[in-house]
Amino acid sequence: MPSTTATVFKGSSSGKIVKTQEKYDLKPHEILIKIKFCGLCGTDEHYKKADMVLGHEGAGIVEDVGSSVTGWKKGDRAGWGYTHSTCGTCQKCLSGAEIFCQDRAFYGETDQNMGGFASHFPIDARYAFHIPAELPLHLAAPLMCGGATVFSPLYNHVRPTSHVGIIGLGGLGHLAVLFAKKMGCEVTVFSGSDSKKEEALSAPFNADAFFAVKGKSADELTKMFLEGAGGKGEQKETRRKLDCLIVSTSVLPDDLGIYFDILEPQGVILPLTVAGPDEKLQVPYMRFLQGGIKVIGSCIAPRYEHNLMLNFAARNKVHPVVMKFPMTVEGIEEGFKTLEEGKMRYRGVLVAEGANEDE
Amino acid sequence: MPSTTATVFKGSSSGKIVKTQEKYDLKPHEILIKIKFCGLCGTDEHYKKADMVLGHEGAGIVEDVGSSVTGWKKGDRAGWGYTHSTCGTCQKCLSGAEIFCQDRAFYGETDQNMGGFASHFPIDARYAFHIPAELPLHLAAPLMCGGATVFSPLYNHVRPTSHVGIIGLGGLGHLAVLFAKKMGCEVTVFSGSDSKKEEALSAPFNADAFFAVKGKSADELTKMFLEGAGGKGEQKETRRKLDCLIVSTSVLPDDLGIYFDILEPQGVILPLTVAGPDEKLQVPYMRFLQGGIKVIGSCIAPRYEHNLMLNFAARNKVHPVVMKFPMTVEGIEEGFKTLEEGKMRYRGVLVAEGANEDE
Repeated sequence: MPSTTATVFKGSSSGKIVKTQEKYDLKPHEILIKIKFCGLCGTDEHYKKADMVLGHEGAGIVEDVGSSVTGWKKGDRAGWGYTHSTCGTCQKCLSGAEIFCQDRAFYGETDQNMGGFASHFPIDARYAFHIPAELPLHLAAPLMCGGATVFSPLYNHVRPTSHVGIIGLGGLGHLAVLFAKKMGCEVTVFSGSDSKKEEALSAPFNADAFFAVKGKSADELTKMFLEGAGGKGEQKETRRKLDCLIVSTSVLPDDLGIYFDILEPQGVILPLTVAGPDEKLQVPYMRFLQGGIKVIGSCIAPRYEHNLMLNFAARNKVHPVVMKFPMTVEGIEEGFKTLEEGKMRYRGVLVAEGANEDE
Repeated sequence: MPSTTATVFKGSSSGKIVKTQEKYDLKPHEILIKIKFCGLCGTDEHYKKADMVLGHEGAGIVEDVGSSVTGWKKGDRAGWGYTHSTCGTCQKCLSGAEIFCQDRAFYGETDQNMGGFASHFPIDARYAFHIPAELPLHLAAPLMCGGATVFSPLYNHVRPTSHVGIIGLGGLGHLAVLFAKKMGCEVTVFSGSDSKKEEALSAPFNADAFFAVKGKSADELTKMFLEGAGGKGEQKETRRKLDCLIVSTSVLPDDLGIYFDILEPQGVILPLTVAGPDEKLQVPYMRFLQGGIKVIGSCIAPRYEHNLMLNFAARNKVHPVVMKFPMTVEGIEEGFKTLEEGKMRYRGVLVAEGANEDE
């Protein structure tokens, strides 16, 4: 069993990043990925005080291939995300919903001696993803969790004819805009202030409309929305209501009620925000009931959707907008600081020593 | 245009029922139904203080047919429900979701001079339902709103292999149990106390399990549920978690959280409870998100589902359990009183003068 000593970056009780080493023995069913880039996600911040190797949006090059592995060879471009393995035989696994497998190995829950903030990552070959040639590795990395997380609800609940509302233009929200626009959807962004308006309405986002909602009543927002305001050029004469509303703010909105007058009956609300364990989602009840509204939870994506997402992103040039930081103690800490201060535009990517954008 | 003077029963500002008359001129596209039975629904109580004819679960015999009507003849058995008409041309109408038509005529919103607590009801023939011969009229009446209201979410979100949880064994809940059992589902009832346990586990309901939840913690409920308690005979060795949870209590449950440990990942919560205009549904957020839970609002059913419902109920003998009251001022008031006191077992039906059970 070939053995590798990897450089890894761990969290610690103080929140300081610790650089250390881990030894991996490659098992017959595994591939060893030499990490080139790793996304920096809000979930990593959540584990910053845990004694575990951080990072779950990795992309790199296959350096070694276990003896029983098929479909992979040295030099292949590979990525992985939140899911390291599942049982493969339960009802959830067998019905395409493996992310709900009760025996899954998930980032943060198991395999804490390995992660994407590292030089190497060994993984069951069946849970690694081939990264299409058209997709640069440094842009593929943030798709491994963030991309899958926004693609899955769009894939399952949105059609190209849908009007998609996206609350929050951040790490997830900016990906939601990119994917939804490339799917042909009409896209409206809701943000606290006007600070991101010009960006949202311009390339690469090209959102159809943008509204600052802070301090606005439901009536004010509805009036502006229906009168066709919020776009780049002249007001539209009519605007269809939202078929779908993606919530991707960093904290749960106080009141989803302000969006109910601009949501179509049978509209779908898709919250993606990560919140505290005891937080409640407050849904204006009778309007939800009488409107036939759906509120649907989702997190990450099963592998078949993940592969569809990568293929879609490669063909349609869905390129995350990233800020790069060196994969060093200082770089990682700066990345977290940028994230915490709300200054990330829009997703952080750690760059391993010697990695370059052409990979 | 043939004219009919109908006896009608209206609400009034004091909440007293008023018996009076209304004159209807039958239009060419309408049929006139001589009412035999009308269900008494919580929604009627909601309008008790409005100056309008009450009742929206009517069943009777066609007495007259407008000149341009096809598909109906005098003597046909007919019913109608919440929807009196829709525009027929909007996106919602054209996509089978006519109940969300913005130009719909709905009970309580329009046509306030006509209702089911009356001798006659004129209706656009396309919005009346043929009642199958196998279904007695007095049992068909409560299906016209209550039946449609529970059938629609079951039809859309439940499979015969599903384990369906039903919170509240009342007017809607008892219909949900009857429909779900006849669909082949495993059915577990949750109620405040044990008072309905024996009934729930016996014919015609034959629920598979029953739990009194008042005062129970999530852990206590989960333990009993998973250990296979709550059934009629011996404990089951294992019990599958719920695929679906129908909320049909008279008021919204304080805490849906106690059900989350017995709900399958990707489970569907289907609230049907009618609540006040400002009430919020509180959803334990991270468990909803990470469980991929769906919370889906629905009310009544479009006509094609309504017809499927009647056909299903007739074939499978889905017979509402009813209490009968004469269709008089006193009878209606007694029915409302029974409903308000929580003593209805399980759905009230008003019987018109001269109507009998064989119709």
